[in-house]
Amino acid sequence: MAGNFQTLPGFRDFYPEVCAARNYVFETWRAVAQRYGFVEYEGPVLEGTDLYKKKSGDEITKQLFCFTDKGDRDVSMRPELTPTLARMAAAKQRDYKKPLKWFSIGQFFRYEKQQRGRLREFYQFNCDLLGEPSPAADAELIALSIDLMRDFGFTADDFQIRLSDRNAWTTFAEGAGVPAEKLTDFLQVIDKLERESPEKTDEKLQPLGTSLTAVREFIQAGAPASGPLTEIIADLEARGMGEFLKVDLSIVRGLAYYTGAVFEVFDIGKGMRAVAGGGRYDNLVDLIGGVDMPAVGFAMGDVVVTDLIRETPAANSRLEEGIARETGIDVYLVVADEAKRPDALALTQRLRRNGYRTAYALTAAKVGKQFQAAEQQGAQIAVVIGQEFPIVTIKNLALRLETTCQVEDFDAEFTRLLLPG
Amino acid sequence: MAGNFQTLPGFRDFYPEVCAARNYVFETWRAVAQRYGFVEYEGPVLEGTDLYKKKSGDEITKQLFCFTDKGDRDVSMRPELTPTLARMAAAKQRDYKKPLKWFSIGQFFRYEKQQRGRLREFYQFNCDLLGEPSPAADAELIALSIDLMRDFGFTADDFQIRLSDRNAWTTFAEGAGVPAEKLTDFLQVIDKLERESPEKTDEKLQPLGTSLTAVREFIQAGAPASGPLTEIIADLEARGMGEFLKVDLSIVRGLAYYTGAVFEVFDIGKGMRAVAGGGRYDNLVDLIGGVDMPAVGFAMGDVVVTDLIRETPAANSRLEEGIARETGIDVYLVVADEAKRPDALALTQRLRRNGYRTAYALTAAKVGKQFQAAEQQGAQIAVVIGQEFPIVTIKNLALRLETTCQVEDFDAEFTRLLLPG
Repeated sequence: MAGNFQTLPGFRDFYPEVCAARNYVFETWRAVAQRYGFVEYEGPVLEGTDLYKKKSGDEITKQLFCFTDKGDRDVSMRPELTPTLARMAAAKQRDYKKPLKWFSIGQFFRYEKQQRGRLREFYQFNCDLLGEPSPAADAELIALSIDLMRDFGFTADDFQIRLSDRNAWTTFAEGAGVPAEKLTDFLQVIDKLERESPEKTDEKLQPLGTSLTAVREFIQAGAPASGPLTEIIADLEARGMGEFLKVDLSIVRGLAYYTGAVFEVFDIGKGMRAVAGGGRYDNLVDLIGGVDMPAVGFAMGDVVVTDLIRETPAANSRLEEGIARETGIDVYLVVADEAKRPDALALTQRLRRNGYRTAYALTAAKVGKQFQAAEQQGAQIAVVIGQEFPIVTIKNLALRLETTCQVEDFDAEFTRLLLPG
Repeated sequence: MAGNFQTLPGFRDFYPEVCAARNYVFETWRAVAQRYGFVEYEGPVLEGTDLYKKKSGDEITKQLFCFTDKGDRDVSMRPELTPTLARMAAAKQRDYKKPLKWFSIGQFFRYEKQQRGRLREFYQFNCDLLGEPSPAADAELIALSIDLMRDFGFTADDFQIRLSDRNAWTTFAEGAGVPAEKLTDFLQVIDKLERESPEKTDEKLQPLGTSLTAVREFIQAGAPASGPLTEIIADLEARGMGEFLKVDLSIVRGLAYYTGAVFEVFDIGKGMRAVAGGGRYDNLVDLIGGVDMPAVGFAMGDVVVTDLIRETPAANSRLEEGIARETGIDVYLVVADEAKRPDALALTQRLRRNGYRTAYALTAAKVGKQFQAAEQQGAQIAVVIGQEFPIVTIKNLALRLETTCQVEDFDAEFTRLLLPG
């Protein structure tokens, strides 16, 4: 039986209105990154599986779309971009002035249980600054993440930057006598603090040599008086972005590879979700590419931020405007007399060469139906070509203005009617 | 050992300058399609392997990146978009006014032997018009392909539309007595006409009931006096596009699913390659989705067209301009006195909020080095903040103009210096 093909679970079809929303998100990501002087790059969607194991351990394969290719290579559809970035940056670092300010917009794949905000395929904006150890780099990236959210139409009522420092926790763990080889386990307990019961957390902390009480006191004490957070906060305050910041040491970000400041863009208005997250990872480029290069970066997925936009009226109306801009046309050419169709085609091409998005009925249709199509496609202008040709009628559908002119005067009259007064 | 990770064979790393070239191609594809009133869509990169077998037979799996996923599904990284389009269009055709004018820009994967212009991963522009059987639809698509090439900077000296008709060949084959079940074999012989020796071709044609002589005479006779080609040519001539057309019945396009007019955008100036190709396929949406929907479409890959742009000076200089536009910045903020860095950060954010691409030295650096960085990044304007602050200096680097002003007059003075006179 035909017609029974389905999209794979966790994968999406992007019909035009959905694709336009996706493109609005992409364009916002791209525009803000470029305003910050970042340049776009992209890596392969398929990489050798070893690359991901090197960063995350063998465990990672459980959630990979991995397979053996026809050349007997173990390959994986990429679950994230950072290992690729580390590989690329290390390989050609001599060709670029430091620091590298690079961003990317691409698709990623994880074989995971589906849940709200989590699919098996998603797009992600990755933004990284490599080759600069100063907290000024961390601040530049956090500023960028704030302006991303503002460009989407979010305010300080909608989101917050939750800022923390991995090193503060390393120092705490050392002081508490947590064995060095248990540091990752310890950080994972902290990472789950908000989601797990106090009893369970304490039960996990005791064998590591500390307790929930000690951890809570440490979090309550807030940022240490010196260290990167102080500098980052001062930098962002100078930019007028202080209102978005909140030090919250309970943020550690799950991933083992962070080495300094970490942060989350956190939705405080709606579902209390992390919309984006990142931090400093000074050892990864060396681990993957054998080149010592400090780095800081963050990533934002398309799924959660689009959910949040949809739930936030001011952001949603910007999105809707973006969709209308992307899917609409400027001009609809109404063919009122089929004998003049060749002239209509010539004028259509002229409008398109002048940069206007122009459509027309491909085959004979009633004039009323053609005007209906013009409205449905959001045309601002309708041009009518009928038996009076070379006289044509131009109608501004939005402003309900109309004029007629000889076809040789068309360009000037068209511009006048498009932007009257 | 670290540093030994490699890109998989046939896959590309898109470093910033390469990514900018890719984006220039994407933006040209998108802009022209939108001028023609097409809307963008996208499908999943991974689909059930059956979808591709249904269209192309079991043979296709030889060149697929296919595997069994963790849920025991036979899945493939997509080698093409048309089966997905047929699935999507059939599933939601009731929600859209016909005809559908849809385009897509996405990545595809084929496990093939690498050669010039052929990788294992490539981007492709797909443009399809569904729900309209008239040759007017074919003409609209061919016009779009011509304008794509012109937007890239190609002229009638660089490319030609080679136009043919599958039905003319079906009629020929019937007349010659080629058995119906051998029609695909027959078309494949025609498809290889230019690449194979006359002896070999004749040897293949004889058992099918015809000969090279008969085939050559048929090609020489050119387009039949009636039929879709006549209408398509008249339509495109009305648009002023006649000079790009050449009827060439030796074009049949390899794929079995075409049912009417077929065409290629053919590079006549350089390597004599097909840059794009397509045609009418009126049965595929029914085969895949169980819905009767006539369709015509074409696809253009990024690899061949980019090679051709690089080989064609007029096209290449447009590409280079596109790359400079994409990777450059507008303003570089020079911090001449570290004590004033907070003020420099505030001004940086102001410029960015006003839409300018703005960069600065993240840490203390000599003023001369900062100006060097400004030039390297293509900044038009440098703004110097030093001990005179709140007086700032604005320099137009390209025009060698300079002014100083109070920071409160900055926006007006900046605009004046950016666009003097």
